[in-house]
Amino acid sequence: MKITCSKNDLLNGINIALRAVPGKTTLPILESFLIDASGDIRIITNDNDMGIETCVDGKIESPGKIAINARIFSEIVRKLPDNQVTLDTSSNYKMKVTCEDSEFVLNGNNPNEFPELPQTNTENKISISQFTLKELIRQTIFSIAQNDANAIMRGELFEIDGKMIKVISLDSHRISIRKEELAFEYEPCKVIVPGKTLNEISRILGSEKEDIVDITFDKKFIKFAFGNTVVVSRLIEGEYFNVEQMISSDYETSVKVNRSDFFNSIDRAFTLTREGEKKPVILDIQDGEMNIDISSSVGSMNSHLYINKEGKDLVIGFNPRFFIEALKVIDDEEISIYFVNSNAPCFIKSKEGEYIYIILPVNINR
Amino acid sequence: MKITCSKNDLLNGINIALRAVPGKTTLPILESFLIDASGDIRIITNDNDMGIETCVDGKIESPGKIAINARIFSEIVRKLPDNQVTLDTSSNYKMKVTCEDSEFVLNGNNPNEFPELPQTNTENKISISQFTLKELIRQTIFSIAQNDANAIMRGELFEIDGKMIKVISLDSHRISIRKEELAFEYEPCKVIVPGKTLNEISRILGSEKEDIVDITFDKKFIKFAFGNTVVVSRLIEGEYFNVEQMISSDYETSVKVNRSDFFNSIDRAFTLTREGEKKPVILDIQDGEMNIDISSSVGSMNSHLYINKEGKDLVIGFNPRFFIEALKVIDDEEISIYFVNSNAPCFIKSKEGEYIYIILPVNINR
Repeated sequence: MKITCSKNDLLNGINIALRAVPGKTTLPILESFLIDASGDIRIITNDNDMGIETCVDGKIESPGKIAINARIFSEIVRKLPDNQVTLDTSSNYKMKVTCEDSEFVLNGNNPNEFPELPQTNTENKISISQFTLKELIRQTIFSIAQNDANAIMRGELFEIDGKMIKVISLDSHRISIRKEELAFEYEPCKVIVPGKTLNEISRILGSEKEDIVDITFDKKFIKFAFGNTVVVSRLIEGEYFNVEQMISSDYETSVKVNRSDFFNSIDRAFTLTREGEKKPVILDIQDGEMNIDISSSVGSMNSHLYINKEGKDLVIGFNPRFFIEALKVIDDEEISIYFVNSNAPCFIKSKEGEYIYIILPVNINR
Repeated sequence: MKITCSKNDLLNGINIALRAVPGKTTLPILESFLIDASGDIRIITNDNDMGIETCVDGKIESPGKIAINARIFSEIVRKLPDNQVTLDTSSNYKMKVTCEDSEFVLNGNNPNEFPELPQTNTENKISISQFTLKELIRQTIFSIAQNDANAIMRGELFEIDGKMIKVISLDSHRISIRKEELAFEYEPCKVIVPGKTLNEISRILGSEKEDIVDITFDKKFIKFAFGNTVVVSRLIEGEYFNVEQMISSDYETSVKVNRSDFFNSIDRAFTLTREGEKKPVILDIQDGEMNIDISSSVGSMNSHLYINKEGKDLVIGFNPRFFIEALKVIDDEEISIYFVNSNAPCFIKSKEGEYIYIILPVNINR
């Protein structure tokens, strides 16, 4: 293999591909980039749960491929001058890297040892804007249960029905739901995508509304294709929770409040929480006013906000972190919160149902 | 005590004072700020090696003092609205923090338990620009021996003689020397300042050439006074190494080279070094050209630079990190390096002697 490409194109490809290089692995070949210049120039990585394949613009002088340590090669390319880089392999899995006056020779590995990326049977296919997918992930990913024994809770449900996509994540204390309209209509289908995959994907996705991701999936795998890049991931198998039955539109108290004022108050209350102490923030909701209190071993805080309240007065306690994480990802200036009583979950809900954040209260024994 | 000051003034003071709050301590009171509004408003911290006292602008309604957990109070102030903050203590060492609609009550401690900062007998006093002191530290601090059993090697020598200040740091492989002219003339004197103190000070010092630091010291303590802040630190007692006798002006080979090209080459070579392997970078110095080579378990690199050489050809090996760290802090576009032979230290030296970096070579068995 002998190829030439610009340092910057190569580095862009490297930065994308690095996302699927495992930190620790029992299969050392997975710490490599498979650089494959059989057809076009592709960098391929695979951590066994997720694989990335990204194309790099460049000139192929002679086709071929090699496996090369991903971290060492990345670090070298990062420090090369901004100029053309030539990669030239020899028969014993060595690769010469030449750029201006610098010449490296790196020890590589047999490219045939590198496991192939899984192929999806394109049973289902949808298209969505990169920006929208990135937002859907950002606004739900925080409430997956990262280390739960139940694999389903470590993923997010992607549910498509007609022109609607719904993304749901939940742990044992809260549920996040985001809906968005798609440009086209699709058959109903649903899959559970691992949170880890979504985290990595959202770091590679662009922020332009016009740029599209094509998503295809079968029962076992999902493939995201966008720009020069394809990401393939295992799906989490199983039946997701029936979230609809947990949602109720009944309420006894509704509150309209300025989002950033509310966020700032709860965020300040959070400074007094100590790990292991689990002291709740207490909302005392009255006509026109909400008092926010917390009391822990280090001190106490009281603050109050002007609100627009309908229905009954209510005193209810929450883990402040759950409110902070939901309020942080909502873009609306004013939010509506719906309560039933001090033992039932509250709903932060937009008018059109684009988002619903459900948070369980903490028993405050009043 | 009851005082009022702006959130920003308070936060500036906090950020300075935090530098002397110990991470771990057997004396829990040291995790506090001593807020002392007896005369003006001062925040005082003390980690037993170093103490900081910084003044905050504000209004004292009633004088007094209190010790309050530094990290919790910092975090709270950081999250307050940009407005006036009132601190109001009650008899049982509680402090009320009020800002707009938020009110905190924090549990504090008896201020009299907080150890007083040591006073220096002002035997010696010099004045220097904050910018210059910051530069002197930046350009030498990297070569102190951070964990050496010999305390002297964990500090830097500050030597004043007439209008000249000289700062020296060394470990077992290299020496860094920086000289600078002072505005006034002083009696000869020298002290060894702990590297930790210098690191913290250089983070608080301003970057303006006109702003002055007044430094006073006796045999045990040194005091830096600048702006609203005073930093007091223990000195390291003992006799510093006689560095002058290690410096020679004889050489067999001298090289002039572009600093950033040389830095980039060595920095690239460094990517191939593996921890524990200690592979040297080898400089092959010939007329008009220097070849830079390294070879390790992961691969090899070769690059060459145009240089201006006088004297004998030479092949010499170095730990690339020592060159990288010295070349990083030199501002000159072109540097001069002087060599005796492949077993003797090399000298990177400016024409007027403002800096000298001495680096021991590695035996390369050629």
